[in-house]
Amino acid sequence: AVRLRVREALGAREPADAVRVQGWVRSVRSQKEVLFLHINDGSSLESLQVVADPSLEKDLTFGSAVEVQGKLVKSPHRMQNMELQAETIRVVGPCDIWSFPLKMKERHPLEYVRQFPHLRCRTNTLGALLRIRSEATAGVHSFFQDNGYVHIHTPIITSNDCEGAGELFQIETSSEAKESAEKTHFFNVPAFLTVSGQLHLEVMAGAFTHVFTFGPTFRAENSQSRRHLAEFYMVEAELSFTESLQDIMQVMEDLFKTVTSTVLSKCPHDVELFHKHIAPAQKSDITHKLFSSSCRISYSEAMEILKQAPQTFTFKPEWGCDLQTEHEKYLVKHCGEVPVFVVNYPYDLKPFYMRDNEDGPQHTVAAVDLLVPGVGELCGGSLREERLPFLESRLQRLGLRDAYQWYLDLRKFGSVPHGGFGMGFERYLQYILGVDNIKDVIPFPRFSHSCLL
Amino acid sequence: AVRLRVREALGAREPADAVRVQGWVRSVRSQKEVLFLHINDGSSLESLQVVADPSLEKDLTFGSAVEVQGKLVKSPHRMQNMELQAETIRVVGPCDIWSFPLKMKERHPLEYVRQFPHLRCRTNTLGALLRIRSEATAGVHSFFQDNGYVHIHTPIITSNDCEGAGELFQIETSSEAKESAEKTHFFNVPAFLTVSGQLHLEVMAGAFTHVFTFGPTFRAENSQSRRHLAEFYMVEAELSFTESLQDIMQVMEDLFKTVTSTVLSKCPHDVELFHKHIAPAQKSDITHKLFSSSCRISYSEAMEILKQAPQTFTFKPEWGCDLQTEHEKYLVKHCGEVPVFVVNYPYDLKPFYMRDNEDGPQHTVAAVDLLVPGVGELCGGSLREERLPFLESRLQRLGLRDAYQWYLDLRKFGSVPHGGFGMGFERYLQYILGVDNIKDVIPFPRFSHSCLL
Repeated sequence: AVRLRVREALGAREPADAVRVQGWVRSVRSQKEVLFLHINDGSSLESLQVVADPSLEKDLTFGSAVEVQGKLVKSPHRMQNMELQAETIRVVGPCDIWSFPLKMKERHPLEYVRQFPHLRCRTNTLGALLRIRSEATAGVHSFFQDNGYVHIHTPIITSNDCEGAGELFQIETSSEAKESAEKTHFFNVPAFLTVSGQLHLEVMAGAFTHVFTFGPTFRAENSQSRRHLAEFYMVEAELSFTESLQDIMQVMEDLFKTVTSTVLSKCPHDVELFHKHIAPAQKSDITHKLFSSSCRISYSEAMEILKQAPQTFTFKPEWGCDLQTEHEKYLVKHCGEVPVFVVNYPYDLKPFYMRDNEDGPQHTVAAVDLLVPGVGELCGGSLREERLPFLESRLQRLGLRDAYQWYLDLRKFGSVPHGGFGMGFERYLQYILGVDNIKDVIPFPRFSHSCLL
Repeated sequence: AVRLRVREALGAREPADAVRVQGWVRSVRSQKEVLFLHINDGSSLESLQVVADPSLEKDLTFGSAVEVQGKLVKSPHRMQNMELQAETIRVVGPCDIWSFPLKMKERHPLEYVRQFPHLRCRTNTLGALLRIRSEATAGVHSFFQDNGYVHIHTPIITSNDCEGAGELFQIETSSEAKESAEKTHFFNVPAFLTVSGQLHLEVMAGAFTHVFTFGPTFRAENSQSRRHLAEFYMVEAELSFTESLQDIMQVMEDLFKTVTSTVLSKCPHDVELFHKHIAPAQKSDITHKLFSSSCRISYSEAMEILKQAPQTFTFKPEWGCDLQTEHEKYLVKHCGEVPVFVVNYPYDLKPFYMRDNEDGPQHTVAAVDLLVPGVGELCGGSLREERLPFLESRLQRLGLRDAYQWYLDLRKFGSVPHGGFGMGFERYLQYILGVDNIKDVIPFPRFSHSCLL
């Protein structure tokens, strides 16, 4: 018998004898004359209907693993193409439905299945999410590869500790951790989990004009927010010989559009599930998110908009202060619930590597944040300060000149105008799917007080 | 002027006026009548020859960043297709050649450039390596995607600490690390950097029949070996409804062949550089590594071969003991310097999750290691113990039953025969390119006493 995946069986053009399908039982319905089974193997959201003689029903419970042999035939039902007429059904692995926390045909809330990180991938919702995540991952790689970017594995463990991107995780060998006395570090120096691959990408941008990375990044922030994780994925790109923020914004937009188109064409049913059941309030049509329109304002304009807002904010908008979630929401609403690029932030608000716009004495830098409806900040980028004197004096003032000697070297030897950005991959998924909690768009969420499995 | 990358300019079919190329100067040769420049932008190993009037030579040093405008014309030289007749040359970023550690036209030893992790990507060798690594990365993703595997981001931070795969890195928040007193963990439990995504992939193999991951893994081993890093990348796959090691070995082989073919077709010149200059002792033809032939022996046969070897080993070969590097080398030589699959290892030598072959009381497990010439172990895999009673009693004996309750759950609810493997990505690159030291096939190597940048 020919082994077919469920997806292949469902999509078959012709009937076939002697077919073998393996998977897990999603439903069992036994009638007097006929037994209906639905089996799923993760290759698609849809399950394959199996029609069998009721005598074949032995230990066939929800969740059990089965192998079915039989004939693939055209289904008489309008909603499905093919079904499998079983000749034999073998239970490969039974499932004790009384202790199994998932129940047949129930749409368990996302909060409920989050308690079972080892089993929740067997639900329709997480199954769909993981297929979408997989296609989006492939889409990210293809987008950059097709545009001539070199992929770089930027390091996870780093000795840079002063980028100021938030609280860091520090690393020790487990034997060191046990000693309370003075430590000798495994790497001789204190080592941390990376908060961004940017500085390492900038190294590479001195040899390749287009580079990207796509990997895990970390924050030790004690947050239970629906938008933050301790371990999350970032897509980051760096472009050399780039003198305008517009170039960076264009790549953000192209990346977003290309990956989203890939996801929509590869997983239409999976995406539909989210828009039907998870975020029904959202338009089921996500094309309106595809930057059919977007808005671009400067930080200073944003502050004016906020100051003139008829509502009162918990944090009073003030030039020089960071945009708070409430501010971001207002700006997005003000612009008509479309993606909003905010550019040219106050110099003192942003990290040392951002490029001085020279529109006043250390007034603004060439930074851009992309805010999107429902999620807030999706991307952040900037032109980098490529001019040695500017960078040197800024690092000097911050007391970081010695630590970043290597970074200054990049400006001594063939420095070029360059810039780049990072996109939070989980937030991207939250945005296109309308998923409220970031814990539901990553296979194994890590956050403060929780590291299951 | 149309902006072209060096690769595009070199491959152009037609001459073109008004072309703009940006990159870094790889060589300057000034003659009485004419100035020759070679500029490289990382898009290919080959640089573009620029022909200019000597009057344009201002601050044009090796390593400086330039923008050249001019006409792209057919080159009169047989070795290159196109060259650029410069009308203007602008130095974008100068390079002080006296302090720049890389010198024009010198083939610096790999050990030398390793001291400059922020600059070595600008050498031909590391440039070629990084392009190859990028294509191989894309090749891995394509291989699995094309074969219906779902990509899973298995977690980097994990609370599993007892797999026995070696010394672990432990994680603390930097504020915790500073306190010497009793600690409250960020995650409530001790947390570690992952040594393998396997167990998490097995979770996913209960919902998808084919899954893979490709990410960083960690060992806190105090090793200065040319084959070990503290941070390295693994490609791992898990297959459900698989009852034979042969299936696993077939995927290993297909993965290897497909990715290697991709690399060979996408980066022929980059690969050639390694076979010419880095590993000239190796056959420049790597097709002999493409499993044109391979060998399969059992662990017991391997021991017999070693015992009958005419040479004496530092570690005496003995049934039940691990294969040492010297043994691996001998076996590969014995089989004719081809890849060697060694299968069915002693039960007590392998981790708890491997499947008992039942060829005696806890005698051997269905494990496979793939040994390759020059590198040793490239892949390791096994069938996993899917039978609840076997797994339960083994975990009980090891005192791990409580810690792995979730893993036992996978065998209670629709368990299926399954197996998988991992391939060391850096070792793969070492093998196909003939690179002796693993530190030279990763952008930013981390090993004991070293975490530069």
